[in-house]
Amino acid sequence: MRAARYYDRGDIRIEDIPEPEVAPGTVGIDVAWCGICGTDLHEYADGPIFIPPSGHPQPLSGESAPVTLGHEMSGVVYAVGEGVDDLTVGDHVVVEPYIVGDDVDTGPDSHDYHLSHDMNFIGLGGCGGGLGEKIAVKRRWVHAISKSIPLDQAALIEPLSVGYHAVERSGAGAGDVALITGAGPIGLLTAAVCKAEGITTILSEPSPLRRAKALESKVADHVIDPSSEDAVARVTELTGGRGADVGFECTSVQPALDTLFDALKPTGVLVVVSIWGHPGSVEMQKLVLKEIDMRGTIAYVNSHPATIALVEEGKVDLSPFITGRIGLDQLLDEGFDTLLHRNETAVKILVSPSGAGLD
Amino acid sequence: MRAARYYDRGDIRIEDIPEPEVAPGTVGIDVAWCGICGTDLHEYADGPIFIPPSGHPQPLSGESAPVTLGHEMSGVVYAVGEGVDDLTVGDHVVVEPYIVGDDVDTGPDSHDYHLSHDMNFIGLGGCGGGLGEKIAVKRRWVHAISKSIPLDQAALIEPLSVGYHAVERSGAGAGDVALITGAGPIGLLTAAVCKAEGITTILSEPSPLRRAKALESKVADHVIDPSSEDAVARVTELTGGRGADVGFECTSVQPALDTLFDALKPTGVLVVVSIWGHPGSVEMQKLVLKEIDMRGTIAYVNSHPATIALVEEGKVDLSPFITGRIGLDQLLDEGFDTLLHRNETAVKILVSPSGAGLD
Repeated sequence: MRAARYYDRGDIRIEDIPEPEVAPGTVGIDVAWCGICGTDLHEYADGPIFIPPSGHPQPLSGESAPVTLGHEMSGVVYAVGEGVDDLTVGDHVVVEPYIVGDDVDTGPDSHDYHLSHDMNFIGLGGCGGGLGEKIAVKRRWVHAISKSIPLDQAALIEPLSVGYHAVERSGAGAGDVALITGAGPIGLLTAAVCKAEGITTILSEPSPLRRAKALESKVADHVIDPSSEDAVARVTELTGGRGADVGFECTSVQPALDTLFDALKPTGVLVVVSIWGHPGSVEMQKLVLKEIDMRGTIAYVNSHPATIALVEEGKVDLSPFITGRIGLDQLLDEGFDTLLHRNETAVKILVSPSGAGLD
Repeated sequence: MRAARYYDRGDIRIEDIPEPEVAPGTVGIDVAWCGICGTDLHEYADGPIFIPPSGHPQPLSGESAPVTLGHEMSGVVYAVGEGVDDLTVGDHVVVEPYIVGDDVDTGPDSHDYHLSHDMNFIGLGGCGGGLGEKIAVKRRWVHAISKSIPLDQAALIEPLSVGYHAVERSGAGAGDVALITGAGPIGLLTAAVCKAEGITTILSEPSPLRRAKALESKVADHVIDPSSEDAVARVTELTGGRGADVGFECTSVQPALDTLFDALKPTGVLVVVSIWGHPGSVEMQKLVLKEIDMRGTIAYVNSHPATIALVEEGKVDLSPFITGRIGLDQLLDEGFDTLLHRNETAVKILVSPSGAGLD
């Protein structure tokens, strides 16, 4: 079968590799669609980061580069391993792409398996990837979805879960006002979850094309151009002088963090969703004198069932965020290159590893 | 009556001023003891900060310098104003020293009156102060205490409430492990509340005299000298490899903040108690990848009843933290000067404005 394999920074190859073995306790999935994530771009441009370099096996998977890429996937079950009796060939599924130790509690009440020792992701740390035609995944990490969800949209459930967990971390609920800095994929999907939960959303984003997308997709109630407007004054005005209840930092740039500290109400919650490559400067006096809670959030933990329900119930429409569909052969030229260099209109580019579903 | 009056930076005068009027809705208190707070020292050395400078009246009190200092006070009721029927002459009381607007909800369910517009403190922003012989305080801010609490110890209930609110903000409870950076008055009193709540305490403090005080007063289960030991390694060892559940930053220095980020477990809570005069550098990657909650805390809000109960029930012994007793005439020479320049052994110096209770 064909797969996109990461060898090293700037070196991704489309290769023929053996199909995975559907071992006991695993589920064989025909990948329908796999999204390209910002993390994949970072690995390509600046990595390896999560990916274990050649000769340095990941402690849990035992694998090192080359590894198959792709962790935002949907597909159809084509085989089930011994002992898997609650999924059937033909079921539609998505993958929660974790690699965690066997000693870690991954039960439904766990809130920290995603922070466990040596944690990594399927499609980065080994164990196959969604940018291959087939993948075998441990039953724990496979979630069945209704056939009412188109499989292309289902590939966005993984990044939507990131937004779901971020909103969960914020503690925000219906009636609250959220300020979201950055309308990239994660900012938009976080806003989508906010809207589904009855939270009013204000998106601050300098790109006019991204602001337009935020309004068209109906995930933003209000947009702000921080390059020409006083974002704090606008939020103050929009909240009747109170300030935003919660903030989501989805840019990894300092001015956005500063804006959030000023635009939040006292006792406001600031969730940092983006991965910063450098330290942030925090006005500790504001943190203290406004009693701000600044909370990190990473990925998701037991978030998939509720995220899938939001999509099944029609509370989130993922279709506006699919801005491209390509095959594996276009991965670098039309996928990575577009996202790295011409990404103002691109939100999520989906890859069909087998080519099925493409025009 | 005699009082310590703040005129300007470096200019505090002991003066004779008229006794306060015990207006309707207020309580007249004979001040027994008043502690000197770090805030008072900052006002003296670097202020005015909270204190309204001469000619710039505080919006709520309408007063400006000179104002009477002192906000950590205990005393005995000598008169009650019209409409006050639940306190009697002779009652022992402490003051929750807030100045807040009449439009602010200060009811028992409020969690944010301390963050309200123009909030200030009695003894800084006007309304008299504990460094005067008498004070009249609105009934709302007067808390009766059992006569079983010595009045000198009762003067420490105000700073203990700061620790109480900090621990409340942390969400920590019995069985948790707290790392507290800094064994100054607030670090020690935060540790005292932790111990009262069944939380194991590790205090990191470079001063050997302060470490000794933390051990002698039994508020520290373990102490660390961060100037000679690897604090993170010690916390890791003391917690069986897990990391501390919560951290309290009581130093306002960068290395302490860095230590807390490294010594906390994933999902740990870092409460910033100290007032920083400069921005902090935060490793955003650690905040995100460990899902740390970094929470500001300031003063207290509806914290006095529970704090008083801790002392009444004997769960906190405040006596070890009283390291000096002086009269108003010694305020600058023996009080401020000791705390500003020879403060390694001094924790809390109490002032008796009337001189009663001094040898």
